[in-house]
Amino acid sequence: MARWGSRAHPAMQVPSPSVREAASMYGTAVAVFLVILVAALQGSAPAESPFPFHIPLDPEGTLELSWNVSYAQETVYFQLLVRELKAGILFGMSDRGELENADLVVLWTDGDSAYFGDAWSDQEGQVRLDPQQDYQLLRAQRTPGGLYLLFKRPFATCDPNDYLIEDGTVHLVYGLLEEPLRSLEAINTSGLHTGLQRVQLLKPNISQPALPADTRTMEIRAPDVLIPGQETTYWCYISELPAGFPRHHIVMYEPIITGGNEALVHHMEVFQCAAEFESVPHFSGPCDSKMKPERLNYCRHVLAAWALGAKAFYYPEETGLAFGGPGSSRFLRLEVHYHNPLMIKGRRDSSGIRLYYTATLRRFDAGIMELGLVYTPVMAIPPQETAFVLTGYCTDKCTQLALPPSGIHIFASQLHTHLTGRKVVTVLARDGREREIVNRDNHYSPHFQEIRMLKKVVSVHPGDVLITSCTYNTEDRRLATVGGFGILEEMCVNYVHYYPQTRLELCKSAVDPGFLQKYFHLVNRFNSEEVCTCRQASVPEQFASVPWNSFNREVLKALYGFAPISMHCNKSSAVRFQGEWDRQPLPEVESRLEEPTPHCPASQAQRPTGPTVLSIGGGQG
Amino acid sequence: MARWGSRAHPAMQVPSPSVREAASMYGTAVAVFLVILVAALQGSAPAESPFPFHIPLDPEGTLELSWNVSYAQETVYFQLLVRELKAGILFGMSDRGELENADLVVLWTDGDSAYFGDAWSDQEGQVRLDPQQDYQLLRAQRTPGGLYLLFKRPFATCDPNDYLIEDGTVHLVYGLLEEPLRSLEAINTSGLHTGLQRVQLLKPNISQPALPADTRTMEIRAPDVLIPGQETTYWCYISELPAGFPRHHIVMYEPIITGGNEALVHHMEVFQCAAEFESVPHFSGPCDSKMKPERLNYCRHVLAAWALGAKAFYYPEETGLAFGGPGSSRFLRLEVHYHNPLMIKGRRDSSGIRLYYTATLRRFDAGIMELGLVYTPVMAIPPQETAFVLTGYCTDKCTQLALPPSGIHIFASQLHTHLTGRKVVTVLARDGREREIVNRDNHYSPHFQEIRMLKKVVSVHPGDVLITSCTYNTEDRRLATVGGFGILEEMCVNYVHYYPQTRLELCKSAVDPGFLQKYFHLVNRFNSEEVCTCRQASVPEQFASVPWNSFNREVLKALYGFAPISMHCNKSSAVRFQGEWDRQPLPEVESRLEEPTPHCPASQAQRPTGPTVLSIGGGQG
Repeated sequence: MARWGSRAHPAMQVPSPSVREAASMYGTAVAVFLVILVAALQGSAPAESPFPFHIPLDPEGTLELSWNVSYAQETVYFQLLVRELKAGILFGMSDRGELENADLVVLWTDGDSAYFGDAWSDQEGQVRLDPQQDYQLLRAQRTPGGLYLLFKRPFATCDPNDYLIEDGTVHLVYGLLEEPLRSLEAINTSGLHTGLQRVQLLKPNISQPALPADTRTMEIRAPDVLIPGQETTYWCYISELPAGFPRHHIVMYEPIITGGNEALVHHMEVFQCAAEFESVPHFSGPCDSKMKPERLNYCRHVLAAWALGAKAFYYPEETGLAFGGPGSSRFLRLEVHYHNPLMIKGRRDSSGIRLYYTATLRRFDAGIMELGLVYTPVMAIPPQETAFVLTGYCTDKCTQLALPPSGIHIFASQLHTHLTGRKVVTVLARDGREREIVNRDNHYSPHFQEIRMLKKVVSVHPGDVLITSCTYNTEDRRLATVGGFGILEEMCVNYVHYYPQTRLELCKSAVDPGFLQKYFHLVNRFNSEEVCTCRQASVPEQFASVPWNSFNREVLKALYGFAPISMHCNKSSAVRFQGEWDRQPLPEVESRLEEPTPHCPASQAQRPTGPTVLSIGGGQG
Repeated sequence: MARWGSRAHPAMQVPSPSVREAASMYGTAVAVFLVILVAALQGSAPAESPFPFHIPLDPEGTLELSWNVSYAQETVYFQLLVRELKAGILFGMSDRGELENADLVVLWTDGDSAYFGDAWSDQEGQVRLDPQQDYQLLRAQRTPGGLYLLFKRPFATCDPNDYLIEDGTVHLVYGLLEEPLRSLEAINTSGLHTGLQRVQLLKPNISQPALPADTRTMEIRAPDVLIPGQETTYWCYISELPAGFPRHHIVMYEPIITGGNEALVHHMEVFQCAAEFESVPHFSGPCDSKMKPERLNYCRHVLAAWALGAKAFYYPEETGLAFGGPGSSRFLRLEVHYHNPLMIKGRRDSSGIRLYYTATLRRFDAGIMELGLVYTPVMAIPPQETAFVLTGYCTDKCTQLALPPSGIHIFASQLHTHLTGRKVVTVLARDGREREIVNRDNHYSPHFQEIRMLKKVVSVHPGDVLITSCTYNTEDRRLATVGGFGILEEMCVNYVHYYPQTRLELCKSAVDPGFLQKYFHLVNRFNSEEVCTCRQASVPEQFASVPWNSFNREVLKALYGFAPISMHCNKSSAVRFQGEWDRQPLPEVESRLEEPTPHCPASQAQRPTGPTVLSIGGGQG
């Protein structure tokens, strides 16, 4: 009777022809509006626009997620639009986008009734109902455009099988159910059509500063590009500022996405080229094209960066990013990452970024500073590690020398590693005590590097220490992964956006090379192996000859946590501030920040203890 | 009106004279029986004797705990007898017996009403009510002998402030409230009269084997000793078996405690002296007395051991501990530990152990085997460590050689360390995979070393590996703590009781001394310090000269987890089995046993959400 889809609008796919026939008995061609009020709305959704954030989940764009965050309730409100519903859908979150060990909400039908329940998948992908139902259905609504599911989830549930929604990247996952099920436990995610989408779910709750009256806009857009029919394309396009374009401040920028390409445009960045070149050749093509002029490699100064799910980026009221005027290049490089896993052909695109700028310069120029590790092979990760941590320091000595007495104010941050990076965090320490997190991503992905506004501006004073740690997974590597520029080498960097601009561009460290040589010597001594400890061998060669047993791994960790460091406290990548920067002591941190204990939802009584039955009834709208 | 104690029996202490006067208004001299039924009995207590286990909590014996364990419900049923109630009482559990970070049940009065609630104390000793009430009051009953409180607690509650009741030692704590309180939060444990008692709460649920028809008993008792008026006394008493006493099997033993001394007799052991001495001089006096004959030091073969809270010890039906007959000494040493913190004087004691033995020898002789670490200084713990782990191995090579093809069966175990030991565990591994826990104590105390029956007999086969790990706390030490016999040195031993007896008495390991010398060499090289790496220095001297920074600590850990070991696979403490036992590889363990996830109590609805009010009413009995 209440068989799933049995009263469906014709636009909805239904499980079998016989059901489709039944559907025609009930269905009408006009806009049928089936409102399924499942439960009294508990609590009220935040005011304003109820769902300011949107993201397509699948490459076809048949699943669309909108959401909002209530920091007061520590709850995310989700609205999932399912354009083509078959027998149900799984949606949820997992550590790195896998469908195993995922925290799921499942909408399914057994043929008779439809259900909505909080579930999880174990390490084999077997789905089970949660004893504690933390996803709470607020409304289910059918429209001609598809089924809207409105539900909420607290950040933390204290159910050990649930995902903890944290700042930083969240890997959203989905799966499509094609057939009705006897029970939820009949689902194994390995048999489904599934996918993942990365997003920063907990967008900061920052009020947008008003734009100046003389704000003008400039669009840096792809020139009607034919998106290649391949999974990954980085498109490069050179444009230029008008001749004589004077110094301005960028105060805001926002994405422009060509309609219909929302699921294809993965991220975009606008770079300014190096000032030393009079001109840069015009180019529009894949960034890895052999035809690409070599000079484009010198267009690396970030002016704007956007990634999927991000909205407009506003500079704080008192600051702007300078561009134009003497001493800066007129040439801009737009880079668009097209992610086209279905290899759709023939799609054209003019996406880009719209810069909002003012001639009335704001009080402060914004600056970008690089924190973390120097790009050097002395910092290496042994192979077959699941969570090896490397740490780079910006020491008190350097901040003492290079920061103004009133300090600097970090308002945004972009984390960066290469392929094996899994987590990144920067912590501010003062007087030997960790004080606050500058930025942290416990589910960092090298494939999703956004500039993120900080929830709270972090002020750094002379004498403060900034500690950036990256966690790597090298399970798929046979040899050590050393630091460096190559894509198979590693980096650990946090580009922090701050004001007022200082001359300090780079505050990074690496282990003292002499101590690393002592390490190779002891490896040789303990392992009776032919580790080349001769100075003629390069550090990557030395690392490649280490036999990676537990002792050599542990001692390398101990070395990195103990040996003195070599500091790069630099005005530009090559010019150091004056002073002694080699064999510096590691900053001592006596007290660590405590992990905040997640608040479990207070009233457990309100939550349903089992799945919600969607009694599909309602009238015509 | 319902003021605490206002209808108390005269035997009860009341908070102030005025209340005592009020009490006389209501009190009667005959046996008043105030039955306070607080809540409907939820679930039913286990059958049989409801509370088979008893222990006095305080040295005066005014608090007495009885308990029972339901493994089916994963719940402990407590009955607390409070002989002299003032304004209330705290009772609970904590990691090592401290009153801070303790999981507490509190009975208190605000002067008007009396309350029973589940609470906890933070690290400052501040008491707070638990949002989740997991101690559940079943009955409160006043008798002339005191107030009986009957309550239950699941092993695991999944409340992060609650104690997890595990196998092994539990540190019970108590505190006495002298005055009525405005609220529970007014309590800070630092201001109370408090104490602790160690006990194995989760006694194994083993059916007692029937005793043979020809069982006889023998009592080894202290000879009416005058207990010294000092906190700690180990009393030594030599007794002897009748001349010509033939070989028998001990099949059971139980404690005999002189009435009134229940809180003073802490533990007792019966040792057999070494067979090589024709005679041992008679002696009765403190074991550390200068008058004690030196020969008593050769009476170390354990026949029976009892500690506070333990009941009778039954050998499994098929085995018994041999004593008497040719080749064994007729002399027995009884050791009684009197724990007398109140320094009570003039108390006499005849406590001891009653052996039950049979002349009809059982099928198997029981044996005792020593697992863990060799007593050698090469195994050391750096100072200022909170949880440093040392591990000793009984390797596959040794069990292959020394165990019978059908294996041995471990039925009991006694864990042993010196003063810095905090945890001990022995795990059985087979084919590189951990299979089962032989015995584990996560709250081990060197002051509470019982022989414990295992919940489940563990069979060890030739080729199996037994891994014994001890966790130490050396926060109060200035220098490294090395392995050895001295009380300020350390041990890591598990004496396992098993059958059938084999010739393998000792299966222990220590790090290869050559690798330790490499360690001292590298410490010297890395630290540019004057660490004496010369071979002439003794190992304790070398350890004493190590500068204990993070690197040296971590590398020592890595060394112990990597370097080859020297095995003691011995028939007796000095005689090895034939074979090569030096520079043996560490057993490889690829898969570890997973920690069992504690079951949280299923139905949260049943539990009260706040304290229970004891409406003190009732009639005369």
